[in-house]
Amino acid sequence: MADLPVGEKIYGALEKSSWIRRMFEVGTALKKEHGEENVFDLTLGNPDLDPPLEFFDTIAALIQERKKGAHGYMPNAGYPDVLDTVGRLVSATHGVEVGGRSIVMTCGAAGGLNVVFKTILDPGDEVIVPRPYFAEYGAYIDNHGGRMVTVDTAADFSLDVDAIDAAMTARTRAVLINTPNNPTGKLYREAELAALGALIDARAGTTRPVYLIADEPYREIVYDGLEAPPILKQCRQSIVVTSYSKSLSIPGERIGYIAVNPSCAGADTLMAGLIMCNRILGFVNAPALMQRAVAALATARVNTQAYTKRRDLICDGLEYAGYRFDRPEGAFYVFCKSPIPDDVAFVQHLQRYNILTVPGVGFGGPGHFRICYCVPESVITRAIPRFKEALDTLPKGTANS
Amino acid sequence: MADLPVGEKIYGALEKSSWIRRMFEVGTALKKEHGEENVFDLTLGNPDLDPPLEFFDTIAALIQERKKGAHGYMPNAGYPDVLDTVGRLVSATHGVEVGGRSIVMTCGAAGGLNVVFKTILDPGDEVIVPRPYFAEYGAYIDNHGGRMVTVDTAADFSLDVDAIDAAMTARTRAVLINTPNNPTGKLYREAELAALGALIDARAGTTRPVYLIADEPYREIVYDGLEAPPILKQCRQSIVVTSYSKSLSIPGERIGYIAVNPSCAGADTLMAGLIMCNRILGFVNAPALMQRAVAALATARVNTQAYTKRRDLICDGLEYAGYRFDRPEGAFYVFCKSPIPDDVAFVQHLQRYNILTVPGVGFGGPGHFRICYCVPESVITRAIPRFKEALDTLPKGTANS
Repeated sequence: MADLPVGEKIYGALEKSSWIRRMFEVGTALKKEHGEENVFDLTLGNPDLDPPLEFFDTIAALIQERKKGAHGYMPNAGYPDVLDTVGRLVSATHGVEVGGRSIVMTCGAAGGLNVVFKTILDPGDEVIVPRPYFAEYGAYIDNHGGRMVTVDTAADFSLDVDAIDAAMTARTRAVLINTPNNPTGKLYREAELAALGALIDARAGTTRPVYLIADEPYREIVYDGLEAPPILKQCRQSIVVTSYSKSLSIPGERIGYIAVNPSCAGADTLMAGLIMCNRILGFVNAPALMQRAVAALATARVNTQAYTKRRDLICDGLEYAGYRFDRPEGAFYVFCKSPIPDDVAFVQHLQRYNILTVPGVGFGGPGHFRICYCVPESVITRAIPRFKEALDTLPKGTANS
Repeated sequence: MADLPVGEKIYGALEKSSWIRRMFEVGTALKKEHGEENVFDLTLGNPDLDPPLEFFDTIAALIQERKKGAHGYMPNAGYPDVLDTVGRLVSATHGVEVGGRSIVMTCGAAGGLNVVFKTILDPGDEVIVPRPYFAEYGAYIDNHGGRMVTVDTAADFSLDVDAIDAAMTARTRAVLINTPNNPTGKLYREAELAALGALIDARAGTTRPVYLIADEPYREIVYDGLEAPPILKQCRQSIVVTSYSKSLSIPGERIGYIAVNPSCAGADTLMAGLIMCNRILGFVNAPALMQRAVAALATARVNTQAYTKRRDLICDGLEYAGYRFDRPEGAFYVFCKSPIPDDVAFVQHLQRYNILTVPGVGFGGPGHFRICYCVPESVITRAIPRFKEALDTLPKGTANS
C-alpha cells in the first residue's frame, strides 16, 4: 500500500464503493444500448421539478442591483439580515425563539452536517443513527473522527426511542435523525420526537452535552395533509440542519443552514465553533448570491402537489404489480421490500428490465430497495409494467411470501 | 473539560484565536467611536473592486435561459462542458495537456485544498509549507490528520529549495506553495519552481508519491509586467488549486477548481478520490450557477491596473513614512517589517492611529505585519499620514534600525 496515490482509508472507500460504480456503469451502458428514454433511472434524488418562478425573478433582480460588494466575503456565518430572516422562519416553524445569532448559513445540509460534526466530535465519539439511514452519514461522521452507531427503527420505520436509549454510552455525543426520512419516506411524529428530546435533555448536566441533530431537507415535502412537527421545541439540546435543495429544487446551488437551539448548554461557544469550522473546512461562507436569494424567497417552494401525484402513481403501480412497501409520508422515495432476500441481486434483476434502483444494504436496510420518484410522470407510468414483468419472471419459490 | 459543548481541539482553537477576536472587537469599537470612514481597516483580503461587467451580464443571461435542471445536481466533479473549458484554459496556462477529466470544480480554493488533503493524507503525514504562509493552511492540513511542517524562505521570501529538501522525511506527502504569496506578495520564478518540481519528481518510484500543491488564487494579480510561470509543466506530481475569488472579485460565491497533472502516478485513482472527497466532505459539487458563469467568462478578470495603482500608492507612502518592506510582485498585501520586534505590540500601536492590520506571527512571520491594500485609494491616501505618525511616535530607541 506504500505507493498509493491517495490515503489508505480513501483507497479502501473507493474499493468498497466499486460495486456502486459498476452498477452506475451498467446503467450508463443500458442507456447507450436502449436509448436514455427507455431506461428508467430511479436512483438519484435529483428533483426534476423546476424551481418556482420567483427563484428566477429574485436572482435576476439581485443581479440587476449590482450592489457594491454583494459577491464578496461577508461574516462567515452569513449576511446578518439573511440570518435574521432565517431566524424568524425557524422560530415560526420550530416553536422556539431563534435569533439570527443562532443561525449559520451553509453549503447545503451536507455541508452543514460536516460542520456540526467537525465542531462537536472528539475522536471516538459516537453518533447514534436510526437505520435505515441516508448512505452518506457514515462518511460525514467518520470525516471528523466519530463513529456511527446504528439502531433499529420500529417495523413501520418510526423511531424506537427505547433502542436509542439502550444504545447510549458515555461516548454518545449526538443522535442524528432525518425526517421525513431518506430512504424510508417516514415522517416522525410529535410524540416520538418529544420522547427522544426528553431522553436527550435528561442527560444534560449529568454528562457532557448530547445533541439531537435533525437533518430535515424534506420538511416541506409531506403528503396526505401531514405536517412535519417542530424539532427545537421538543429538545433544548437540539440542532436543525437543512437546505433549500428540495423545497426550491436547487440542490446544485448548495445552500442551507444550521439552526441551534439558543437554550442548549454553552450555545455561544457552540455557535463560535460552528462558525469557525464552516470557515476552516473550506466552505468559508455559504454562496453569497444564493444566501440573498433564499432570504428574499422566504416561504416560496416548489409545487409539492406534483410529488403527491407521483407518489400515488408509483405506489398504486407497485401495488398493482405485487410489491410490498409502506406508502411514503414525505420525501420522494419508496423503500420497497425486495421480493427475494438478496436486495443487490434483485436490483440487478430489475436492471434486466431497464429499471435502475438502489439496494437497501447501502442504507443499512438490507432486504429492501429504494425507488426515487422525483422523475417525470411518464417515466413512472412506463416503468410500472416493467416492474410487474420483473416480479412475474422471478423463478418460482424465490420470492418472499 | 468533560462538559464542553464543542470538541476539545475546537475549544482549544477558539481559545487560541481569542486574541484575533479581541483585535476584531477593538476594530469594531474604533469604527463605532470614530465613524467607519475614519478607521483604516487593512486586515481582510476582501477585494473591493467590482466584478467585471461581463459577470453580471453572464449571470443574467444564464438565469434568463431557465434551462431545465440547471440548478440541480450534476456529476460531482462538475458539468462536463465546464470541466472541458477549464481544462483548456489550464492547458494553455500550465504548458501541459489537461482534459476535463483532470479537473474538479470546487467551493473556492479553500474547499479545493481541503478536498486534496482529505484525499491524499494518511494520519501523521507531513505537508511542507514555506513560511510565512496563509494562516489557514495549518487548519486545512490538521482537519484531515496531517501535520504542517514549515520551512524558511530566503531573505526576499523566494523559495529555499534546499531547505525544503532538508525537511523531507519518509512521512512527507506534499509541498504546498502559494504564489503569488499571501502574505508576502512574492511571485515564485520559473527556475525556483523547476528546482522544486525536480526535487519532488525525483522521489517518484523510490517512495510513496509526494505532491507539489500550488495554491494560486492570485495568479492573475501580478505587477511590473511579471507573469506567473506555469506549475504543471515543472512537476509531474503536481496539483493546482485555485479560485475565481480574486480574478473576478467574487470570493463570497465560492467557486474554484482543482487541476491534476495527468502524468502524476495513479492519476485516475487520485481523481476518483478527489471527486469522492468533494462529495463526502459535504461540498457535493461546486455551486451550479457559478460553474456555468465562470466557464462562460473564461478569461474575464477584474481591472488589475487598479491594484497596481494601489500597490504604488501604499508602497510609496510607506516608504515616505519610513517603513521597510519588499515591494509586492503580486497579490494585494504588503508584508511590512515591524519597527519593533514585537509585531503584535506594533499592530496594537497602529490601532491607536485607527489603522487595523494583522500581526505577522499569525502567518509564521513574526517581526512583520500584513497590510491589505484591496481598499479604495482614498483609504490608502488618508492612512499614510497616520502610518507616519505611528512610526514617529514610537518611543526612541525601540525601533529596529
